[in-house]
Amino acid sequence: MTAPAIVLVAPQLGENIGMVARAMANFGLCDLRLVAPRDGWPSETARAAASGADWVVDGATVFGSVPEAIADLGLVLATTARPREISKPVIRPSEAAERLAARLEAGETGGILFGAERAGLDNDDVALAEAIVTFPTNPKFSSLNLAQSVLLIGYEWFGMAGQHGGRRRSGAGMQPLAAKADLIRLFEHLEAELDAAGYLYPAEKRPVMVRNLRNILLKAELSDQEVRTLRGVIKALTGAKGQRPGR
Amino acid sequence: MTAPAIVLVAPQLGENIGMVARAMANFGLCDLRLVAPRDGWPSETARAAASGADWVVDGATVFGSVPEAIADLGLVLATTARPREISKPVIRPSEAAERLAARLEAGETGGILFGAERAGLDNDDVALAEAIVTFPTNPKFSSLNLAQSVLLIGYEWFGMAGQHGGRRRSGAGMQPLAAKADLIRLFEHLEAELDAAGYLYPAEKRPVMVRNLRNILLKAELSDQEVRTLRGVIKALTGAKGQRPGR
Repeated sequence: MTAPAIVLVAPQLGENIGMVARAMANFGLCDLRLVAPRDGWPSETARAAASGADWVVDGATVFGSVPEAIADLGLVLATTARPREISKPVIRPSEAAERLAARLEAGETGGILFGAERAGLDNDDVALAEAIVTFPTNPKFSSLNLAQSVLLIGYEWFGMAGQHGGRRRSGAGMQPLAAKADLIRLFEHLEAELDAAGYLYPAEKRPVMVRNLRNILLKAELSDQEVRTLRGVIKALTGAKGQRPGR
Repeated sequence: MTAPAIVLVAPQLGENIGMVARAMANFGLCDLRLVAPRDGWPSETARAAASGADWVVDGATVFGSVPEAIADLGLVLATTARPREISKPVIRPSEAAERLAARLEAGETGGILFGAERAGLDNDDVALAEAIVTFPTNPKFSSLNLAQSVLLIGYEWFGMAGQHGGRRRSGAGMQPLAAKADLIRLFEHLEAELDAAGYLYPAEKRPVMVRNLRNILLKAELSDQEVRTLRGVIKALTGAKGQRPGR
């Protein structure tokens, strides 16, 4: 079974990236993805802070955007300190590890998004995830730093991946999730058509409407075939390719 | 229910103590005990690294030795990266949290020992604990730093303490553990008598023999009454107070 990707969105300090790499190495994670690291990449401060987890630092890949970073992934989870006003399932790290293990054991891919040091993930990034992971902490003092959050996820992952059977969910019988790139193309197809139809209006409400729509489709945990079906549906409804002659 | 004490033995960097305080605050722990902190106490670097968890830093208490630091505690667990050649139960952080919760829920006290940054706990410190806690990590890269270790314990504790009933063990029916100060007095009493009898010989084997004896008594999870009973047994056997006239 492969391990899930750790996706750091707009990380600021190289030191924090290095400490994330170290925490990943502690728990057998090695696929580190960086979206627009503020101070550039590669980073000597990251390497120094990794305390020897060089293979994680050296293997890190850099992307310009979240959609690019998760294009090949199936199940994607987003970590936040507090649940957002987004209607997505909110799960604990232990359940995140369970869900990822079930998917990855079935040969699929998956990853977890972590936001920037203070700002966290923005709503559009969270909107691309199947579920939100929150960390149960003291409500009066809930700040976990980036490496601590990755550490807790890694800890749960390692504990889960080490179990054969047991309390782990079985992935058997689940349909493979579509890769995020295909899902995002579906989103954009739908949104372009809705823009053309004047539905996503007024402009200031468009972002919320888009997120809500994406969320509905994400909750469905679509397979490749289902994504293709829905794209056919959109084409059919909008009369593309002459499927609705007369329009 | 109170929370377990976090006992740092010979911690070196104030920064690490501060990060421990922060991790404690994240998970509702506040009883920080320092045994012989290398750079003294109070520490401004600790305070800065605590990122606002001032009440933990300010409330920290300093001790000259491990026996003093755990004198009032019942259940004491020792964290190590690797299991030692000591015949004690070796448990995971989740079981550590369960055991502590069961004891503390019953009104007892407990704590966890963490060693110095690189050296860890020495065998005599470990010998004072009921059980050893190890962290499941990648065997090829298993170094967790002090604050990370405390973070994982705190995380499991917080998750466990938040459960009412559920998978948590019940403390009902258990006898309260004797406080470590009373247990250590029993150890010292026994060892003094054995020294006098020439049993703990040769000198180079004495430390191992002492640890093995202490371990046997620790495994028994003695109550106050049992400690008093055993002290009476030792006195009786050695003829103190004229209980064995003629000797």
